[in-house]
Amino acid sequence: MINLEVCLTPTLLPLFNIENSIVVVIDIFRATSSICYGIENGATAIIPVAEVEECIAYREKGFDYLLAAERNGEVVMGFDFGNSPFSYTAEKVAGKTVVLTTTNGTHALHMSIKAKRIVIGSFLNLTALCNWLKTQSEDVLLVCAGWKNNFNLEDTLFAGAVTERLKTGNYKLDDAALGANDLYQLAKDDLKGYLKKTSHSERLKQLGIEADIAFCLNVDITTAIPILDGERLVKLEV
Amino acid sequence: MINLEVCLTPTLLPLFNIENSIVVVIDIFRATSSICYGIENGATAIIPVAEVEECIAYREKGFDYLLAAERNGEVVMGFDFGNSPFSYTAEKVAGKTVVLTTTNGTHALHMSIKAKRIVIGSFLNLTALCNWLKTQSEDVLLVCAGWKNNFNLEDTLFAGAVTERLKTGNYKLDDAALGANDLYQLAKDDLKGYLKKTSHSERLKQLGIEADIAFCLNVDITTAIPILDGERLVKLEV
Repeated sequence: MINLEVCLTPTLLPLFNIENSIVVVIDIFRATSSICYGIENGATAIIPVAEVEECIAYREKGFDYLLAAERNGEVVMGFDFGNSPFSYTAEKVAGKTVVLTTTNGTHALHMSIKAKRIVIGSFLNLTALCNWLKTQSEDVLLVCAGWKNNFNLEDTLFAGAVTERLKTGNYKLDDAALGANDLYQLAKDDLKGYLKKTSHSERLKQLGIEADIAFCLNVDITTAIPILDGERLVKLEV
Repeated sequence: MINLEVCLTPTLLPLFNIENSIVVVIDIFRATSSICYGIENGATAIIPVAEVEECIAYREKGFDYLLAAERNGEVVMGFDFGNSPFSYTAEKVAGKTVVLTTTNGTHALHMSIKAKRIVIGSFLNLTALCNWLKTQSEDVLLVCAGWKNNFNLEDTLFAGAVTERLKTGNYKLDDAALGANDLYQLAKDDLKGYLKKTSHSERLKQLGIEADIAFCLNVDITTAIPILDGERLVKLEV
């Protein structure tokens, strides 16, 4: 049996033994959705960093980086673009390395650093990701980036979607995977409608990024699986 | 608006501002169920402690304490009884002070110590607890004791049951309350059947305490609300 567990927030990561596990980092609105879309569209690599200042440091390295940073829903002055997945089109990112500022997503990634492998999941690459996971023999831990270290519904729903696709196999589910899967069952026919009731959705609406949100809930429009290689997320060769 | 939030495990408690809140501690299998039953049945007070040694220290105080301690499902030698709710009948506990060894429940209680008020919830006193909460104006935080600091389904379901009864009022729900409530909707017609799939349930079955589990899922068989007064849980006078 392979363990399939869900870590509902990065705060809970120390409770899991991840040295021999594959960790899937999940930050649906919007970091991991944008990363999947950018890698699909030919970005050479995406480097997630926590602070705008770290992002700026890459410009000073003199290399041809694209810098992505947003604060309060606006592209930070002097940066190439923000966190909207619509910035990660082939036209903009093919052949480029993007340095992306995120908070929750980067935190989840850094907290997972001891894992055997770290890959990136979103609704965009759901089936491709699950098909690959099924070929692996390691335990799987789905790490929800959450919101300021606490639980959020959108990341949990995605964890439930992965569980849905793996549970018929040789996996042993923990309580969080069981719960996430049940929530996904309730929500799957109308993810957007289901998430409307969340406070996070209210917050994002105020930022005027409803179009981003709708895009991030597209299922299976990409097949690339971003994987962490050093500090860079690159396309997993399968 | 009153905030109604769910803290899915004690590990997440530092994320919440509880100084002005009412905290409801939830450890369905079996600590908070036994506490509700014991206070209902006339125990003068119940003192939850983390370690068997702390429990023993009360005997040395020379007072007429009943000591309850279990390890691996067996009453520890020299103790009066274990953690089974069936030990908390009027015959055994009326007029007595019980010192109860628990791990998850005590941990959640200690982590919540800065709250304005701490009360104890279980399916046994669900409606009485909710009716009282509705008369209060403070924010409410439902703290799931969980299992070894991680998420568990049974405590989350109870948080969802409380949310179900309060949500029509003037409450603002966080994502965890929304998710817990949806899980409760799925489970409410057959709590026992729903929980059968959990790993925790497997573990408890191995301990041979199925009868305890079934008892802890009885809804509204008590009306007493245990409240923390110093180190002692006593009956809230309403």
